Amino acid sequence: MPPASHLATPSGLPRARTFLTFDGKAGANNAITDVAGVSVGYTTLIKGEGALRPGFGPVRTGVTAILPRPRLAVASPVFAGLFSGNGNGEMTGSHLIEEVGAFNLPVTITNTHSCGIARDGTLRWLQRTLPEVSETSWHLPVAAETYDGFLNDINGHHLTAEHVAAAIDGAGTGPVEEGSVGGGTGMIAFGFKGGSGTASRVVAWQGHTFTLGAFVQANFGRRHNFTVRGRRLGERLVEPRPIVGVPDREKGSIIVVIATDAPFLPHQLKRLARRAPLGIALTGGYGYHSSGDIFLAFSTANEQAASGASGKLAQAQYIPDPDIDVFFDAVVQTTEEAILNAMIANRDMTGRDGNFVPALQGAWLG
Amino acid sequence: MPPASHLATPSGLPRARTFLTFDGKAGANNAITDVAGVSVGYTTLIKGEGALRPGFGPVRTGVTAILPRPRLAVASPVFAGLFSGNGNGEMTGSHLIEEVGAFNLPVTITNTHSCGIARDGTLRWLQRTLPEVSETSWHLPVAAETYDGFLNDINGHHLTAEHVAAAIDGAGTGPVEEGSVGGGTGMIAFGFKGGSGTASRVVAWQGHTFTLGAFVQANFGRRHNFTVRGRRLGERLVEPRPIVGVPDREKGSIIVVIATDAPFLPHQLKRLARRAPLGIALTGGYGYHSSGDIFLAFSTANEQAASGASGKLAQAQYIPDPDIDVFFDAVVQTTEEAILNAMIANRDMTGRDGNFVPALQGAWLG
Amino acid sequence: MPPASHLATPSGLPRARTFLTFDGKAGANNAITDVAGVSVGYTTLIKGEGALRPGFGPVRTGVTAILPRPRLAVASPVFAGLFSGNGNGEMTGSHLIEEVGAFNLPVTITNTHSCGIARDGTLRWLQRTLPEVSETSWHLPVAAETYDGFLNDINGHHLTAEHVAAAIDGAGTGPVEEGSVGGGTGMIAFGFKGGSGTASRVVAWQGHTFTLGAFVQANFGRRHNFTVRGRRLGERLVEPRPIVGVPDREKGSIIVVIATDAPFLPHQLKRLARRAPLGIALTGGYGYHSSGDIFLAFSTANEQAASGASGKLAQAQYIPDPDIDVFFDAVVQTTEEAILNAMIANRDMTGRDGNFVPALQGAWLG
Amino acid sequence: MPPASHLATPSGLPRARTFLTFDGKAGANNAITDVAGVSVGYTTLIKGEGALRPGFGPVRTGVTAILPRPRLAVASPVFAGLFSGNGNGEMTGSHLIEEVGAFNLPVTITNTHSCGIARDGTLRWLQRTLPEVSETSWHLPVAAETYDGFLNDINGHHLTAEHVAAAIDGAGTGPVEEGSVGGGTGMIAFGFKGGSGTASRVVAWQGHTFTLGAFVQANFGRRHNFTVRGRRLGERLVEPRPIVGVPDREKGSIIVVIATDAPFLPHQLKRLARRAPLGIALTGGYGYHSSGDIFLAFSTANEQAASGASGKLAQAQYIPDPDIDVFFDAVVQTTEEAILNAMIANRDMTGRDGNFVPALQGAWLG
Repeated sequence: MPPASHLATPSGLPRARTFLTFDGKAGANNAITDVAGVSVGYTTLIKGEGALRPGFGPVRTGVTAILPRPRLAVASPVFAGLFSGNGNGEMTGSHLIEEVGAFNLPVTITNTHSCGIARDGTLRWLQRTLPEVSETSWHLPVAAETYDGFLNDINGHHLTAEHVAAAIDGAGTGPVEEGSVGGGTGMIAFGFKGGSGTASRVVAWQGHTFTLGAFVQANFGRRHNFTVRGRRLGERLVEPRPIVGVPDREKGSIIVVIATDAPFLPHQLKRLARRAPLGIALTGGYGYHSSGDIFLAFSTANEQAASGASGKLAQAQYIPDPDIDVFFDAVVQTTEEAILNAMIANRDMTGRDGNFVPALQGAWLG
Repeated sequence: MPPASHLATPSGLPRARTFLTFDGKAGANNAITDVAGVSVGYTTLIKGEGALRPGFGPVRTGVTAILPRPRLAVASPVFAGLFSGNGNGEMTGSHLIEEVGAFNLPVTITNTHSCGIARDGTLRWLQRTLPEVSETSWHLPVAAETYDGFLNDINGHHLTAEHVAAAIDGAGTGPVEEGSVGGGTGMIAFGFKGGSGTASRVVAWQGHTFTLGAFVQANFGRRHNFTVRGRRLGERLVEPRPIVGVPDREKGSIIVVIATDAPFLPHQLKRLARRAPLGIALTGGYGYHSSGDIFLAFSTANEQAASGASGKLAQAQYIPDPDIDVFFDAVVQTTEEAILNAMIANRDMTGRDGNFVPALQGAWLG
Repeated sequence: MPPASHLATPSGLPRARTFLTFDGKAGANNAITDVAGVSVGYTTLIKGEGALRPGFGPVRTGVTAILPRPRLAVASPVFAGLFSGNGNGEMTGSHLIEEVGAFNLPVTITNTHSCGIARDGTLRWLQRTLPEVSETSWHLPVAAETYDGFLNDINGHHLTAEHVAAAIDGAGTGPVEEGSVGGGTGMIAFGFKGGSGTASRVVAWQGHTFTLGAFVQANFGRRHNFTVRGRRLGERLVEPRPIVGVPDREKGSIIVVIATDAPFLPHQLKRLARRAPLGIALTGGYGYHSSGDIFLAFSTANEQAASGASGKLAQAQYIPDPDIDVFFDAVVQTTEEAILNAMIANRDMTGRDGNFVPALQGAWLG
Repeated sequence: MPPASHLATPSGLPRARTFLTFDGKAGANNAITDVAGVSVGYTTLIKGEGALRPGFGPVRTGVTAILPRPRLAVASPVFAGLFSGNGNGEMTGSHLIEEVGAFNLPVTITNTHSCGIARDGTLRWLQRTLPEVSETSWHLPVAAETYDGFLNDINGHHLTAEHVAAAIDGAGTGPVEEGSVGGGTGMIAFGFKGGSGTASRVVAWQGHTFTLGAFVQANFGRRHNFTVRGRRLGERLVEPRPIVGVPDREKGSIIVVIATDAPFLPHQLKRLARRAPLGIALTGGYGYHSSGDIFLAFSTANEQAASGASGKLAQAQYIPDPDIDVFFDAVVQTTEEAILNAMIANRDMTGRDGNFVPALQGAWLG
């Protein structure tokens, strides 16, 4: 009997395991927060209805904060690597991660046109919360985005630095809400309501037990291609509940954040990130042109080494490359499941100009 | 009624369409040679049985030559791009392709330890065949590899420059043999006999009809993960016909070569190459550690521009990026089908030290 | 006799050619604006003195806008390529440029902690100026940064979206101010006052005349290494006018933007960008650890092709790769000269906490 | 008084320090072999005179072997990273190094058309010397090249696997011969005789003393640009001793191999490799189109960790990124000096078709 947190979100929405089975062993809450020290927070902005008036709404957006370490330790870097499967998107901090294999501070994910405020808002939060850190160095926060302009007044720039700080300050461990929350609020996946989703796996290796979790902001895919555990459901789901106000082409994207407490070096974390699109492919996502598919992987281990402290030899432990495959499996599995969670733990949404996006129905998965 | 060439190879082995259906419209022969001007040739080396005596056999190897242009025009470059999904492998010429977005001469694919002779052998062939080209410039041929040491005396270095020349000189258009031929002779995929496979799609765009073909040398995958058109067959195929002399871990790889007559710029061909692993994922391949998964895409269009001729402005035509998705679909579809062809158009093989690899049976796919 | 604009900035500060000679033929104003259609605008923020009070100043910062096309055509993309010589910095839009080889909208350069507001401010400017463009698509603006926290209240976040819009709206062609203006206001180079600098070269090729210009925001280098036209001046300039309030280590960076009207494909523009660090090396900059050295090159040619318009074949012209060397020379030459201009067209500056940075004196160059 | 090995090669040719001074402290022999465990071997092939008859000569070529570890330990990997400054060249093994941050076996450098035989020849040497290693795994040797076709019968493929083995077996520690030896035999730099060169620096850090060495195969540069310690000598050296049989354009390249005993992680070694072109720029090399400028850096430290042994946590030590600048300096300095050594420790050479390349004269450097 799976734990309740595997079957429903904190607010009671069903998760994918209510209808489907998956490979591997999920962690306690089947969430990225199963990785010790990692927390997730949301600010969700839903306001107004009717015709779009840029600057006035309707608003269907938000911001998600993923803290790689406990809030007051979040200036301590984590080893990291990334991969851009399709670069029609943004993830600030990427040059730094590629150069030094690490980043610090919360990762934020929001809408395309608020990615800058999410980035700088993280710096404002830092100055307020940890001024002694802020004032002695520069920082290059990681902020990513997907496009919610079909439902949201994206040019209204409704997200503020205060909203960003609220998501960071509100970040918690334990079960994670999914669907139309945080940065995922106005997102669409395979022509259904998309948004925020997560999953985790417990990986046993040489007597150790590690956890790997994925968090996705899913906003990609054509309904026709939608695939669930090998079944091409999309083809027969084109009819029942169409999008109203159909966009002429995908403007979607997917951000995947992989966290693990297993020790890996930066070059290995790039390898993990490069497996995320394989999990996406299993749901029918093929990285279409306008999609920003950017994948980040980090490890909470080796905190001392990742600190980059000057003046003495750093020491890092890591799982050797030949033993990495079970973690590749976990990346593929959690990415796939997190996408399905983002879609299943969801509800219909009507946004700007009456644009309507139906939720995927669990009944269709049988 | 599909054409005969879609159902069987020239030598009569069944192809995947005998048992399965696929998306998209295949070209005349469902082969990379459906792209006008592209030809494929093989030298297959099978000799000896019994215990391995390095240098003496048994030999289960070969070399494949893919000519992007007709033989006597093969020094004329094609625009190209590549992607390394997992770099535990070799593809010479990669630095050049990344730098100038083009390559010329035949692409060869062989075993890991003969990749250098395949490369230099191509240069020897050029000197003999087109000395006026050879003597006025340097060349950086593309040669790739996967590992066949489970069946083959790979340290015997049985491949010679003459074998390479024979594959190039023997390259033909039309239907293509598949399975245990050429560089694919000693390869293993998902614990079954793997090797050479191909497939193609016809892509309609704005009144034009283009062809895109994939050629794979498939030598990757764990049987447990083997997936056929969404069905996880691997789990129930672990028992029936095991490998004898089981390798303790995957030492596999997959090379994918994508050819198209659709006009694309180099940066777009990199995008095509980056979709190959999505097709591999659909068969259950997740890029395990020791796999060399390197993907090359080229376009035969824009011959004048790709020539890099000095002294006047070059002119290139290309399909705009927003219209590229149908070609991404074709990459995913042909890569998936080419892998299945490589496995289905095959037979059991016994190699060095009596090591045995069973062929996948069509009956298991029902 | 060189034109006056080669010898002094619009405000009368001396430029490097007052003291030094350079290779190649400079354009009319020896500035990036010599490339037709390219304009540069600044907002410079200098306010307050004395002790740092985060949020209150002193302020020594600003933002620079470089418009690749005329203001009302700035949504029309340009082909582009980039290179990160050392990734301890930020340039938003990088994933897009790597993927599709193009970007649109103004490029902004500011301080490290305001890079997000520069990015989103560009979107706000777009919505106000070209709402029909803003509302029909998403955009991923390019915003870059270097660190000015030694002189500026960088955690005060003094830059606003209005400042960004003012820089864009104020952008002009013709002679360009240099030194402590715009994003370069609070910058330091080789222990002297650094900031904004530019230079250009006219390149003749096959009867055509093209222009290539560089713009730098120079904030890097150790005084000891400072080299001027081959002379290691830094060693003997350590004494005379030290920085007061010396930072314990370089926190510098350099952003280089290369513009040309010569037609190049995206992969060629990456090649141009990769030559920028060679020009930096000639001044004594070796890409030290904490430096964010990110280089962007774009071409204003091929406007129709770069538009990425769907539905018909695009056509691009370009200079063939074998003829590219004269443009490589121009990148090296303009990058070197732009850095020296940024330093020579400058004045001493005192910033937060009385921190003092001396200007390089022309007399020392003799 | 510098040691004799700093002033002359073992065969008595003058080294750059006879005429010039350099920054930093050189190691015992000012050679890559100052890094403990690293050895260098050459096979030099000089045979015949007169008109080129492909296959018969004249021969002016060879192969260089650099062993990162003692001969019988050379299958034990070293951490490594690389950078392609200009990809018109070849370095096999690059995909592996990018993926796992390590390589093993000797590095070979030869002419462009023999790079494959150098690669496979290394495997044949391994099979003969360490069969138990060869037979239990696949290997992906590193082989690089530059073009010697102006002097050498490059299409004659005169290099054999035996020559490769001889270079490996002959590799020694201590002083290293320079100039027209090994792979550098037929090379040209700045219109003068180029070839093999090396230099080293001793780097003190936190009470430790480390060594970093560079080895170059220099075959690049236009005479006009040649720069020596800041002086643009090339402009006035165009006249005195021209090349006879002048090539119409540079077909050159430069391979740089950086070795150090300082402990670095793979991502850090990529950073070291990315500084090599800065040293090249100081000699007047700007990465012209047809040049293959590929740079490899490796560390002999962390042997246990780099082994990639399965089944237990690996442990790596490394110098933290903020302390890396002194090593960047050493890369720039040794690369510059190694190039000058390759040119100064040299003699005139006449090759195929009477093509003549003069040696740089020490007297011109005064």
